[in-house]
Amino acid sequence: MLDPVSWKSSDGGTYRRYVPELAVSGGKLRLIEQTLLPEKLEYIELDDTESIFDAIKRLAVRGAPAIGCAAALGLAAVVRKTEFNSSGELPAFAQKTAARLAESRPTAVNLFWALNRCMAELKASNAASTGELKNTLLKSALDILEEDIQMCRSIGMYGKSLLHDGMGLLTHCNAGALATGDYGTALSPMYVAHEAGMKIKVYADETRPLLQGSRLTAWELHQAGIDVTAICDNMAAQVMKEGRIDLVIVGADRIAANGDAANKIGTYGVAVLAKYHNIPFYVAAPYSTFDLSLDCGAKIPIEQRQPAEIANGFGRRTAPENINFYNPAFDVTPNELITGIITEKGIITPPFEPGIRELQNR
Amino acid sequence: MLDPVSWKSSDGGTYRRYVPELAVSGGKLRLIEQTLLPEKLEYIELDDTESIFDAIKRLAVRGAPAIGCAAALGLAAVVRKTEFNSSGELPAFAQKTAARLAESRPTAVNLFWALNRCMAELKASNAASTGELKNTLLKSALDILEEDIQMCRSIGMYGKSLLHDGMGLLTHCNAGALATGDYGTALSPMYVAHEAGMKIKVYADETRPLLQGSRLTAWELHQAGIDVTAICDNMAAQVMKEGRIDLVIVGADRIAANGDAANKIGTYGVAVLAKYHNIPFYVAAPYSTFDLSLDCGAKIPIEQRQPAEIANGFGRRTAPENINFYNPAFDVTPNELITGIITEKGIITPPFEPGIRELQNR
Repeated sequence: MLDPVSWKSSDGGTYRRYVPELAVSGGKLRLIEQTLLPEKLEYIELDDTESIFDAIKRLAVRGAPAIGCAAALGLAAVVRKTEFNSSGELPAFAQKTAARLAESRPTAVNLFWALNRCMAELKASNAASTGELKNTLLKSALDILEEDIQMCRSIGMYGKSLLHDGMGLLTHCNAGALATGDYGTALSPMYVAHEAGMKIKVYADETRPLLQGSRLTAWELHQAGIDVTAICDNMAAQVMKEGRIDLVIVGADRIAANGDAANKIGTYGVAVLAKYHNIPFYVAAPYSTFDLSLDCGAKIPIEQRQPAEIANGFGRRTAPENINFYNPAFDVTPNELITGIITEKGIITPPFEPGIRELQNR
Repeated sequence: MLDPVSWKSSDGGTYRRYVPELAVSGGKLRLIEQTLLPEKLEYIELDDTESIFDAIKRLAVRGAPAIGCAAALGLAAVVRKTEFNSSGELPAFAQKTAARLAESRPTAVNLFWALNRCMAELKASNAASTGELKNTLLKSALDILEEDIQMCRSIGMYGKSLLHDGMGLLTHCNAGALATGDYGTALSPMYVAHEAGMKIKVYADETRPLLQGSRLTAWELHQAGIDVTAICDNMAAQVMKEGRIDLVIVGADRIAANGDAANKIGTYGVAVLAKYHNIPFYVAAPYSTFDLSLDCGAKIPIEQRQPAEIANGFGRRTAPENINFYNPAFDVTPNELITGIITEKGIITPPFEPGIRELQNR
């Protein structure tokens, strides 16, 4: 359990076994400076609004659940170190801080959700002293982190049931510890299996254009002592053909009511390849990823990103100027290519629509 | 026709309309310094053995047919500028030069083939003067180039029959002008169609790890005025799903007697994706690519390349150290995924085995 007075968890201040990324340490938000990965592992500790705003904006921390946790912990840290003349000043200051942090990533739903929840709990609190109000904010943040940890672990436990010793797995992008408060979503079953002594071999697609697979997934799995092999995206088919892959697990950004799942560009291609090679293809995501207002994936808008990510993504020009570039950030994998969806409430298998609705109130 | 005395072709010294890469100019081998592409278009002119050796070795010129042409033209250029006391000295010098050039790329079959052919024709010649012997070598080299040009054009003409106005095409890696003496193989139908006024839209997979697609294919198609769009390899599936691709054409490094085709890593995945989306998938290659001693593609060895190409290919580290890398240079597309093989002798369609044998003596 968490001790808000000493700002430490009972296991010594870290909440994640392998990659302790999000924590409060000495009253500060502590996180990995992810922009330096994989070359350097550096932690930064922050307790002022602009540094935290900046850390989220420049992707020092990324991944929807991780951003939510970081913003909540950051809000608590900023308010904690501030001195107030009276406890009445605190809520307005916290609101101003939360509003500023919310501007750091304008489309990050988890960011707004986490900050709103912290502020709502602060306003609903009966605490009278500034010290108690500060601890209320901290408790909200730690609750959000703790719930995220439980969600990750639960996905990991359900997902582990699909794994066995000696298995080869493929994943795409990074839906791991670096994107959540704990073991991640797609990577959580791998961590849980590894923890249980299972020997697995994971192939990580490098995931162009931003290389989250080789920079982040390969890094964090290797940190955990899991056997990981980086491949270029276009090698996945060959690796499958050679019989190296028994199961694919990927994350999701948004899932429609029929199970169609939007995720990082390239996921759909991997699903087609898995189908052709008769390899089970699983999506792992918290239940909050379902958007039941969308009946199918065609309704999910696909963001187009800057040509520079393709043309100039490695510090040198890799394509001519003046040509066209097409750079969709996501794709949608249709439900017929998905073997199952691993959530913290259980694994949903086809037909997805009733399965998804059934878990809604569980 | 070629005029060996003025060292110019009748159309003004260039043999390729769009990207005049391989030519003799003022007695020197003239080629594009491809290592500078796509940032800079620079031609180099060479007539000494070590510079030509070096140009081939460091991939200033690459692609099997282009290497063969460059070595033959280079041999002629080196011998041409050398002064001999008697014509008897020339063949030994040419042999020494050819032997040195042959060491530049130890696995390049076309390199040995072209140099051996030049030397055989020199030895069989009745020429008496050094001037005549020099012209014999030049004629051999120009013949090799001319045959390569004809091969490319012929593939282009056959391939064009598959194209129509408004078509969207996808290609992988570079099997174009920069890899041959002329229009290339996979790209030749596009050039020929474009020349005929057909409007086509080409998507070029960037082709990790070495990015021949975005660096070279996108560059040369753009030079030719063809509408080209660079995508990351993992976007091909999405582009197909959106209905942007009507036809895929790729090159081949080696084709077995049953039509199984080895080509740049990623080709097999594209073929699977094309099948899933009901898009015709064509391989374009000179007939010399068939290795009829191999009954199927499983006999084609797959070269493994250095991890650094994945981990550190763009001047910065993009994956952690100490993890595993898997970097196959090629993959084999099984014949059941291939709609047809476009050769300079015609288009072969399934069943491939009899089709391939039938064209053997044509």
